[in-house]
Amino acid sequence: MAVYTHVSAELLADFLTRFDVGQLVSAKGIAEGVENSNYLVETTTGRFILTLYEKRVSGDDLPYFLSLLDHLADKGLPVPPAIKDRDGRAIHELAGRPACLIRFLPGVSLSHPTPVQALATGDAMGRMHRAVADFSGDRTNSMGIDTWRPLFQRCGDSLDQIAPGLHGDIAIALDAIEARWPRRLPASAIHADLFPDNVLMLGERVAGLIDFYFACTDLRLYDLAIMHASWSFDATGVHHDAVVGDALIEGYSRHFLLSADERAAFGDLAVGACIRFTLSRAWDWLNTPADALVTRKDPLAFWRRLRVYDPDLAARMPTLA
Amino acid sequence: MAVYTHVSAELLADFLTRFDVGQLVSAKGIAEGVENSNYLVETTTGRFILTLYEKRVSGDDLPYFLSLLDHLADKGLPVPPAIKDRDGRAIHELAGRPACLIRFLPGVSLSHPTPVQALATGDAMGRMHRAVADFSGDRTNSMGIDTWRPLFQRCGDSLDQIAPGLHGDIAIALDAIEARWPRRLPASAIHADLFPDNVLMLGERVAGLIDFYFACTDLRLYDLAIMHASWSFDATGVHHDAVVGDALIEGYSRHFLLSADERAAFGDLAVGACIRFTLSRAWDWLNTPADALVTRKDPLAFWRRLRVYDPDLAARMPTLA
Repeated sequence: MAVYTHVSAELLADFLTRFDVGQLVSAKGIAEGVENSNYLVETTTGRFILTLYEKRVSGDDLPYFLSLLDHLADKGLPVPPAIKDRDGRAIHELAGRPACLIRFLPGVSLSHPTPVQALATGDAMGRMHRAVADFSGDRTNSMGIDTWRPLFQRCGDSLDQIAPGLHGDIAIALDAIEARWPRRLPASAIHADLFPDNVLMLGERVAGLIDFYFACTDLRLYDLAIMHASWSFDATGVHHDAVVGDALIEGYSRHFLLSADERAAFGDLAVGACIRFTLSRAWDWLNTPADALVTRKDPLAFWRRLRVYDPDLAARMPTLA
Repeated sequence: MAVYTHVSAELLADFLTRFDVGQLVSAKGIAEGVENSNYLVETTTGRFILTLYEKRVSGDDLPYFLSLLDHLADKGLPVPPAIKDRDGRAIHELAGRPACLIRFLPGVSLSHPTPVQALATGDAMGRMHRAVADFSGDRTNSMGIDTWRPLFQRCGDSLDQIAPGLHGDIAIALDAIEARWPRRLPASAIHADLFPDNVLMLGERVAGLIDFYFACTDLRLYDLAIMHASWSFDATGVHHDAVVGDALIEGYSRHFLLSADERAAFGDLAVGACIRFTLSRAWDWLNTPADALVTRKDPLAFWRRLRVYDPDLAARMPTLA
């Protein structure tokens, strides 16, 4: 959420000559996205996002992400494809980092989406899942269920520094969800991080789906569960807005009517999403100095959502009782 | 150089209804400027910078800064005036901060200005000083010569942590420059911080002068000296580009031919600029944790410039010998 790598105007102007995008007019470092450096670049022909990939995005994964974006853009989805240079290349190196020049999309990320906006976004996810039916790319989910236990073990007893008893409670939840995980539900390429941050809205219309840097092959319904968990609660994870949550599912169901198996598994997938974000935030929390300028996200905000998604499980846990 | 205060899209859309600027289309937090929070905002009618003033800019000073910008814009200078709302107000409150909506200017800040660009910028400063001949606003320089000794004393012996002997050397320079300071040279409103960062260029043309938040009443020639010291050295302060420095003065001289007194005093004013930025950077250095995400600027980069501006003085100093 900061600009980690500085690109001088001179270097940027030179970089742009590789593309048919006109001359540099303006460039502003922007605070956006996963841990990448981003510049909003204006040229004499249009606007672009220049992204330099920092440690969290592996350069090896870029071909997958970019081919997925190309595929979705070709099918008319509002995603930002990378611009190819005169030699047809989309992946470059700039200031020692892998770098892409990406089409700018208008729209704003909402903090408090309305049910109508949730309906439109559920619909957009359904369209996205339909559009990848013939996408051949494959990427293991680097934050999928098989990674949770190793991450839990790396956090270890320190979890109890976040809330007394959290270590034991997450162990209970992990045991339960690993046993119940519905591995045989339909899978495809999914976004895997479609928080409100990553949807650009113009009024009640979805103008952009962005930040595909967790995209992977995983259960379709898990994508919907992540969106549901991220959209239909307040920032503390205490208050659930069921109308927004239902609207997301209704919009999605225009494209994929949930099967009986999927309806039965939805709560478990949502609990999985809560475990995933609790653990990744807990790791960041435990490894970020309290006085650092990056905002540490409250790991408990996702944990508290278990009260809605699995009240019986939550009732057994001291941290949620 | 970060976004300190978050403004939600919903709050921003509501804020924009106070102005005749159309509907919100896009908003990106940008990493720019003194310690303010800035958003690049696009509406259906144009582009703007939304600035929320954090601790370093006092809300009490805003009327001065804004009236200076209005005055300069009226005279055709490429500065970004604040947009007035339907009631004629430019200063607002948003998210608990003083806030202004400012016209967006195109252009890029250069890292390595050429002599031609330096000539254009010297010329722009000359035009700016001419344009304020009938500006009635007044503001004491909050970083002027009378503030250097108190700041030096607040830094104290800790200066020697930056370089052994720095405390004693700065004392020598302060004594010398306070005694020689040419207080009777012509004064006016000046920018007082016209680093390359604060000049937006389109090719070889000055498209914008920005970040007037150190503007004040002080010696005109001191403004030129600050620009000279910030433009005509490399980042380490070791290598001086005399051609760029001369071009700045040549451009400026199209509007104000330097008097004999001014030519004689220029070196002292430049040493003063070096002391001012050495001290403010030293203070930030000593008060910023080494692992903070903000980049600490090297205090010695301005100190080393003394070797060019006053070789005799520098020769007496262990830190510069």
